[in-house]
Amino acid sequence: MNFNYTEKTTSLQEKLNTFFEEHILPIEKEVSAFNYDPDNRWKRWPGMEDLKAKARAAGLWNLFLPKSYGELSPGLTNLEYAPLAEIMGRVLWSSEVFNCNAPDTGNMEVLAKYGSPYQKKQWLEPLMNGEIRSAFLMTEPQVASSDATNIETSITGDGDDYVINGRKWWSSGGMDPHCKIAIVMGKTDPDAPRHQQQSMILVPMDTPGLKIIRPLSVFGFYDSPEGHAEIVLENLRVPKKNLILGEGRGFEIAQGRLGPGRIHHCMRLIGMAQRSLELMSQRASERIAFGKTFKDFSSIRQEIAQSQCEIEQARLLTLSAADKMDKEGNKISKDLIAMIKIVAPNMALNVIDRAMQIHGGKGVGPDTPLAHFFVAARMLRLADGPDEVHMYQLGKSVINKYATIKI
Amino acid sequence: MNFNYTEKTTSLQEKLNTFFEEHILPIEKEVSAFNYDPDNRWKRWPGMEDLKAKARAAGLWNLFLPKSYGELSPGLTNLEYAPLAEIMGRVLWSSEVFNCNAPDTGNMEVLAKYGSPYQKKQWLEPLMNGEIRSAFLMTEPQVASSDATNIETSITGDGDDYVINGRKWWSSGGMDPHCKIAIVMGKTDPDAPRHQQQSMILVPMDTPGLKIIRPLSVFGFYDSPEGHAEIVLENLRVPKKNLILGEGRGFEIAQGRLGPGRIHHCMRLIGMAQRSLELMSQRASERIAFGKTFKDFSSIRQEIAQSQCEIEQARLLTLSAADKMDKEGNKISKDLIAMIKIVAPNMALNVIDRAMQIHGGKGVGPDTPLAHFFVAARMLRLADGPDEVHMYQLGKSVINKYATIKI
Amino acid sequence: MNFNYTEKTTSLQEKLNTFFEEHILPIEKEVSAFNYDPDNRWKRWPGMEDLKAKARAAGLWNLFLPKSYGELSPGLTNLEYAPLAEIMGRVLWSSEVFNCNAPDTGNMEVLAKYGSPYQKKQWLEPLMNGEIRSAFLMTEPQVASSDATNIETSITGDGDDYVINGRKWWSSGGMDPHCKIAIVMGKTDPDAPRHQQQSMILVPMDTPGLKIIRPLSVFGFYDSPEGHAEIVLENLRVPKKNLILGEGRGFEIAQGRLGPGRIHHCMRLIGMAQRSLELMSQRASERIAFGKTFKDFSSIRQEIAQSQCEIEQARLLTLSAADKMDKEGNKISKDLIAMIKIVAPNMALNVIDRAMQIHGGKGVGPDTPLAHFFVAARMLRLADGPDEVHMYQLGKSVINKYATIKI
Amino acid sequence: MNFNYTEKTTSLQEKLNTFFEEHILPIEKEVSAFNYDPDNRWKRWPGMEDLKAKARAAGLWNLFLPKSYGELSPGLTNLEYAPLAEIMGRVLWSSEVFNCNAPDTGNMEVLAKYGSPYQKKQWLEPLMNGEIRSAFLMTEPQVASSDATNIETSITGDGDDYVINGRKWWSSGGMDPHCKIAIVMGKTDPDAPRHQQQSMILVPMDTPGLKIIRPLSVFGFYDSPEGHAEIVLENLRVPKKNLILGEGRGFEIAQGRLGPGRIHHCMRLIGMAQRSLELMSQRASERIAFGKTFKDFSSIRQEIAQSQCEIEQARLLTLSAADKMDKEGNKISKDLIAMIKIVAPNMALNVIDRAMQIHGGKGVGPDTPLAHFFVAARMLRLADGPDEVHMYQLGKSVINKYATIKI
Repeated sequence: MNFNYTEKTTSLQEKLNTFFEEHILPIEKEVSAFNYDPDNRWKRWPGMEDLKAKARAAGLWNLFLPKSYGELSPGLTNLEYAPLAEIMGRVLWSSEVFNCNAPDTGNMEVLAKYGSPYQKKQWLEPLMNGEIRSAFLMTEPQVASSDATNIETSITGDGDDYVINGRKWWSSGGMDPHCKIAIVMGKTDPDAPRHQQQSMILVPMDTPGLKIIRPLSVFGFYDSPEGHAEIVLENLRVPKKNLILGEGRGFEIAQGRLGPGRIHHCMRLIGMAQRSLELMSQRASERIAFGKTFKDFSSIRQEIAQSQCEIEQARLLTLSAADKMDKEGNKISKDLIAMIKIVAPNMALNVIDRAMQIHGGKGVGPDTPLAHFFVAARMLRLADGPDEVHMYQLGKSVINKYATIKI
Repeated sequence: MNFNYTEKTTSLQEKLNTFFEEHILPIEKEVSAFNYDPDNRWKRWPGMEDLKAKARAAGLWNLFLPKSYGELSPGLTNLEYAPLAEIMGRVLWSSEVFNCNAPDTGNMEVLAKYGSPYQKKQWLEPLMNGEIRSAFLMTEPQVASSDATNIETSITGDGDDYVINGRKWWSSGGMDPHCKIAIVMGKTDPDAPRHQQQSMILVPMDTPGLKIIRPLSVFGFYDSPEGHAEIVLENLRVPKKNLILGEGRGFEIAQGRLGPGRIHHCMRLIGMAQRSLELMSQRASERIAFGKTFKDFSSIRQEIAQSQCEIEQARLLTLSAADKMDKEGNKISKDLIAMIKIVAPNMALNVIDRAMQIHGGKGVGPDTPLAHFFVAARMLRLADGPDEVHMYQLGKSVINKYATIKI
Repeated sequence: MNFNYTEKTTSLQEKLNTFFEEHILPIEKEVSAFNYDPDNRWKRWPGMEDLKAKARAAGLWNLFLPKSYGELSPGLTNLEYAPLAEIMGRVLWSSEVFNCNAPDTGNMEVLAKYGSPYQKKQWLEPLMNGEIRSAFLMTEPQVASSDATNIETSITGDGDDYVINGRKWWSSGGMDPHCKIAIVMGKTDPDAPRHQQQSMILVPMDTPGLKIIRPLSVFGFYDSPEGHAEIVLENLRVPKKNLILGEGRGFEIAQGRLGPGRIHHCMRLIGMAQRSLELMSQRASERIAFGKTFKDFSSIRQEIAQSQCEIEQARLLTLSAADKMDKEGNKISKDLIAMIKIVAPNMALNVIDRAMQIHGGKGVGPDTPLAHFFVAARMLRLADGPDEVHMYQLGKSVINKYATIKI
Repeated sequence: MNFNYTEKTTSLQEKLNTFFEEHILPIEKEVSAFNYDPDNRWKRWPGMEDLKAKARAAGLWNLFLPKSYGELSPGLTNLEYAPLAEIMGRVLWSSEVFNCNAPDTGNMEVLAKYGSPYQKKQWLEPLMNGEIRSAFLMTEPQVASSDATNIETSITGDGDDYVINGRKWWSSGGMDPHCKIAIVMGKTDPDAPRHQQQSMILVPMDTPGLKIIRPLSVFGFYDSPEGHAEIVLENLRVPKKNLILGEGRGFEIAQGRLGPGRIHHCMRLIGMAQRSLELMSQRASERIAFGKTFKDFSSIRQEIAQSQCEIEQARLLTLSAADKMDKEGNKISKDLIAMIKIVAPNMALNVIDRAMQIHGGKGVGPDTPLAHFFVAARMLRLADGPDEVHMYQLGKSVINKYATIKI
């Protein structure tokens, strides 16, 4: 047991922090302002490709893909990547610069792990190069989709093709002009056993029958250029070779997809929370009311102390989950992964909310990243399964573990 | 002591509910969609004037103005108006239909109470008729404005005029094309005793020197058509007769302005929370996961039970504050008013957040009013003074009250 | 709607407060010390009968029994009695002085409402006179007794007698030497429909076969002289005339018993919380750390402000439940009664816990009533059904109420 | 970074767990019952010395003393000892068996670190052998003692002696018949700079002038045989050689004393919480209400899932603090030590409270360790400084750390 980062990690942190200081932070507000401007909706900030090239040149590219993927991977473990994801979390739009953005990361992992050579050539390669982006079409408006057996989209074999019908929403990234491919979850056999009904299939975004109904706002944000799309799939046809892994393997793929993605999400949340704490500390040291600087009010100090405690705990828990995943795999780590999925968004919401409050009106407005952080964190109490689903399963697992100890 | 609404109140509730069913609910989504569309930003929904005429014809007009104002008032007490404000809170844009929208209500009260005959004729009359709207320019970006002694805007006498310089933000309503007049808080004498430095003055929105810098977003929402404006006042001149009540009376006016406005805000929050509870109950009775309808999960029932408890308590507290204000005036009621200001927004946030969570992705998106309710409630933990300021003062007052009881 | 106490109420409050100042507060610590001394366990403080006589002489006797009981009752409504129960809550041992102590109050109501003339003569009369005390034997160690259908104690007819077998615990008051009679809940017919299996029967404490196993401690407290008894009933015989109301009516009686008792419990909790707030305010105004009096720390003020908000809300909710019960009866008021049962103990725990914390070590020790208040409140999250049971039922009721409103 | 226990640690855990299974758990209830019996108050359970001999023989003795103390120490780091302290926390009275009980551990550290050869011979040796026990007299009833500058006890030089006057309370262990020596904190020079006024001095418990006023209860527990004493020191004389380290060094010693002790307390709290979670899981898997086993209620699962999340986070935080203390010393680790002091007691209270609630009446009574765990954890929100003091200092430190980062 050892709580110090390795030298490899601290040197990567330093490198990434330097990149942020030189290339990200100076333009943070400019990019955000571009993205918030309704006139730019679904347009990409023009400097992005340049910035990506710089990151790639600096060796800060695809760091998310664990070394277990062999030569595709730049060679980091989940535990080594996690503190870097934390840094990326500090600026909402920055992950793409390093080709480490969701849902592409999860999609790339799926293709790297389960894709056919054809699928890899066609879709994984350009994704790894950051030439295109992707979407993941899982959630459906009509059903509680966190219970995958509820999924209603149908994938029906018809000659050499599959025909797909269904309605998806919250397809994050689906509005991005660079988004060229979607992984769609549907049912190939609604009569198979509960967890063998589902399949995943690759659907190019320009396939006839795929219709973007509308972008969804989250609170009032549109998250341009990625967006969250509502999409109808109507008699949409793709060749059978687009099916990933095989019929009835969709649930299995979904399970495999989630582990590292949750580490990433959670570490980014920790980055958001950490930055919020720093902003809050700065505000507290400057602002004056009733004759006292904020930092001298005991209630302000309590909020900052509690935030520090909550962040550090969530960070350790997430790092420990990454460590376990590296050593024992996703499946054995599932309780710990459930734990971080429950803990990190709620922790972040608490911290960010306090930071907003200390900032007064400025905190809920456009001049700090706080309100957008809050919304991103709130979304993550729902995305990839709401808290309640994870607690339902974790609770069951814990009870079973301890129910028979007799002490 | 009697916890039943009077017959007068229940008959007004019924009348207002009927108006909602006939005229508001059927078009709720249409109006919201219009307001959310960036192409309509700062445009007013075209049907609004018609709707206002209908409300006025139905006798549902200016109900907010307490009967203590004599013939200007339609004759309700705060306690009688409160349950009506609750109903209006159920639909975010509906208060204007009844000319009961903030900040106009507070501004009208100020003019009715402290305005000169000239000021009343010029500004109160068209406001009471719903012909124009108004803004209240209090908060400044550079200072903690909840401590009014921090205000930096200067109001300097120069011949027959005052010259005003300063920067204001979060001037709600300031973007509305109908907004014609602003009440500006500033300092006429920075060397006077702490609470006699401030004055309030009427500034027509088209006065040269008043420059709208930008609209502020709140969690991504722009709240068109009212908006929240950042405004610079630069060597702006208005005639001395625009000063309200007299030099150095600004703090006094601010105090007088707040009581009823807080009742209104709090009751609207209770309406938001109540509607969220109803939406959550409906969702719980329809949605299915893991083989069970949501309503049969004990955790869902707990959230709904807790929400019910919290709403009913906040409602009673707010009604009791209204009753006390009617009987003993704003000043004597100040602790109770502070209490509702602390309680209602936090209660509403809790309830709305649970409702969002039960709705899954739909809850944070554009298809229910929940996300916007949440943001409105979050804003009200800051507007009219953050929670912390009210707790600071209430805590002091309570300690002083009980410190000497020796039991 | 009117939030002022009536003149009748304020005059009774004044009278009771005066009695406290003259007769209760001066000896509060002496009586508590007597009760805490293990050498006095299950002995009654010698001055109690005198004190009761004084209260009776002052007309402060049996005030709990609602005027709906006719001439047995001193004539108060639940709404009129509630603020008096609040005052009694301020001193843990004081309710008995006014013959308003649980579980006697509930038992007296049962007998007044459902008792036969024989039962009234035999048991109600001495209870109303404060000559004896009583116990209520409901909870069983082996089953979740808040679900009355789980009850395992059997009541079997045998000739002119019933034979009772079972094990009960948490029989509050059962250790008191004055405790002469118990109402026992058991099953006369385990095969009847779910809510007609249970009956209630009167069992004199000296009946052979009734064996007190042990007193139970609550967080180390024994609550002498009442205590909480574990009792075995073994082939215990009582005559059939001791059955209350009739076979299979036990559930119905239990329902009828609970309403007013919950008002009493909740108002006493509000009294405990209110006194804790006063103690906390006094401490805050005296104690100094780091160069500041506690009351000048913003965090202390926040805790006091929040406590005030929580107390006042719970008080209003409880009073409104009392009012509804007076006007519409227990059954119609059941949701509101569930609400206060959920709200009041948790509110009290929050407030008392803050008060303890502000008192430092003194707060958890024997020199203030705080620690014992805390334990009493904690017990009431379980007694008469744990929070979870009430939320389960209230949640269901609320969902059903709102599920069909379509707005 | 590595989250696995070392082999050394897992083998020690196994050894200690085996000792518990063989020697502690079988008699847990017997010892507790002995300690709770008022007839045994301030008597030691007769089997204790035997049990200590067994632990010592098994090499499970004085494990708390870090290897930095050289040959006095059995050679564990704080990080290695921490998981063992967690196991000891599972049974309230078990730490003494391994001579790892507070306040002796802290007192031994003080003597090992700062004691003169005379003091070591006289007091450290028998303490390390478990022949005597000790008390630490810091807290005073009249002042907020967490601010050490408030301490009023005077230590005045007089010839070869010091004369001590003062009143102390919450002197844990002070009632134990084995308690032979106390370390007393007082002021040798009230006019010295703020942190050089205090000194610590050794006072044999049988010194004339030391008068035990009374044992203090915590909630209703007396914690026999250790107890919490209120003690008056009246013109008490001890020779000058009893002063530790030197005049004015008391504050410095107090600081040095606290680090490892906090790790111990926190890990024991984690042990209490962990055991509570296990008890709660067992209860949930057995108990039935409304036709369902508790474990199938989603709300129960949520409570168990949340408890698991909170425990694991607090455990990692505490272990990381131990690791940092081993590597960088107490002083550098002070923020992290403050964090665990804030986090662990509150976490434990949350978990234990949920466990009590799931146990119903049994949970607050004498048949599980839960109620006593709760009280022990509640005490630790006050002992060694209340939460508020730690948050006040941690908050300040965090603000200072981040206030100048400009991002």
